[in-house]
Amino acid sequence: MTTAHKLVIVRHGESEWNQYNKFCGWFDADLSEKGLEEAKCGAKAIKDAGMKFDICHTSVLKRAVKTLWTILEGTDQMWLPVYRTWRLNERHYGGLTGLNKAETAEKHGEEQVKIWRRSFDIPPPPMEHDHAFHKIISEVRVTKKTIGNTLRHEGLKSCSARKVPLLKKAHIHARMSDAAIMELNLPTGIPIVYELDANLKPVKPMAFLGDAETVKKAMEAVAAQGKAKK
Amino acid sequence: MTTAHKLVIVRHGESEWNQYNKFCGWFDADLSEKGLEEAKCGAKAIKDAGMKFDICHTSVLKRAVKTLWTILEGTDQMWLPVYRTWRLNERHYGGLTGLNKAETAEKHGEEQVKIWRRSFDIPPPPMEHDHAFHKIISEVRVTKKTIGNTLRHEGLKSCSARKVPLLKKAHIHARMSDAAIMELNLPTGIPIVYELDANLKPVKPMAFLGDAETVKKAMEAVAAQGKAKK
Repeated sequence: MTTAHKLVIVRHGESEWNQYNKFCGWFDADLSEKGLEEAKCGAKAIKDAGMKFDICHTSVLKRAVKTLWTILEGTDQMWLPVYRTWRLNERHYGGLTGLNKAETAEKHGEEQVKIWRRSFDIPPPPMEHDHAFHKIISEVRVTKKTIGNTLRHEGLKSCSARKVPLLKKAHIHARMSDAAIMELNLPTGIPIVYELDANLKPVKPMAFLGDAETVKKAMEAVAAQGKAKK
Repeated sequence: MTTAHKLVIVRHGESEWNQYNKFCGWFDADLSEKGLEEAKCGAKAIKDAGMKFDICHTSVLKRAVKTLWTILEGTDQMWLPVYRTWRLNERHYGGLTGLNKAETAEKHGEEQVKIWRRSFDIPPPPMEHDHAFHKIISEVRVTKKTIGNTLRHEGLKSCSARKVPLLKKAHIHARMSDAAIMELNLPTGIPIVYELDANLKPVKPMAFLGDAETVKKAMEAVAAQGKAKK
């Protein structure tokens, strides 16, 4: 059970659309100024920990790419190989893309919106071809060879499934159950470190990187989520 | 002779070490503010031309990576695949790395410095293990699998040779002679467009992208170089 590999995951911070409380999905919203600051804090935490990497993975969405760039520049590792893939994209929110979350709840009811957001099997309504964001999403973000180009909406189930080939490729064995993953709402901008043995099994619980105050707040927030849902 | 492919090359702009008139080579100097502005101008020219790309290549040096990032962000194409390779690095300046060019000419004579800079066969002196920049250059910039990790200096001949595998991989057939390439001193920050037929042969001379004034200056500068060397 000695550590052979380290995997660091960073969830991107606030995007310009988070500010407007809109369903974002595959719309390519940029980081907000606050989101960029979150990425810089994450970079500083990684730099202070002296972590050096071999390889980086990101989604094709600019809020994730810019978070990675900020970390690469802040830790002086801009030379590292970077792989982009639509498989790491946020869940495709289908017809809800671009709608205000509160307005959608008023129109369809809070219960229906909760089902669209949290159901494992039931996806949100598909994105129709006349949807305001259909063209911009479908034309450029994925290669023509992938299913991503024809994707019109995703539930949590299909969103999880499309990440599996990536995880296999990256030799990462997930040990968490689907249900446990759905319950977990990770903090943004804070590097999360997994230590793995030679067989890529975690040797200890995930840890947050950063100054004591930041880490304490992040751990409390995750713990509070778990309590609220019981 | 119809255009089947387009290749756009951008030479990075001023680095922090250009300002100090130092031999830079593989030292990982950042872009200066002026260099960043040059990259932004290049991005604007590409955006104004409406060019969309399939794939990007860069060296592993941050002055080149940041130039590419600036163009990707400025043209809203941050999702494109990017390949970094030491084969696109600037020539390794060996023992001259970090020395002021004027001081080196005073010490060794202008004729000797000219030979080191311009000779096709004679490389600059190798970088010894006790060179101030040996450690930082050798430890991180290339993978252990490449010759780049043990490289200690390069003449123009070996520097050209190491680019050949990359050009073959990228299916780019160079038609210029070695001598013609040595004579050519391309403008920085200005996108240079090659139009290629289905067999990857150029169908017209290279063209500069940008507003009329910028392109005119760049073309005059390249023309003047040719005259000065005759």
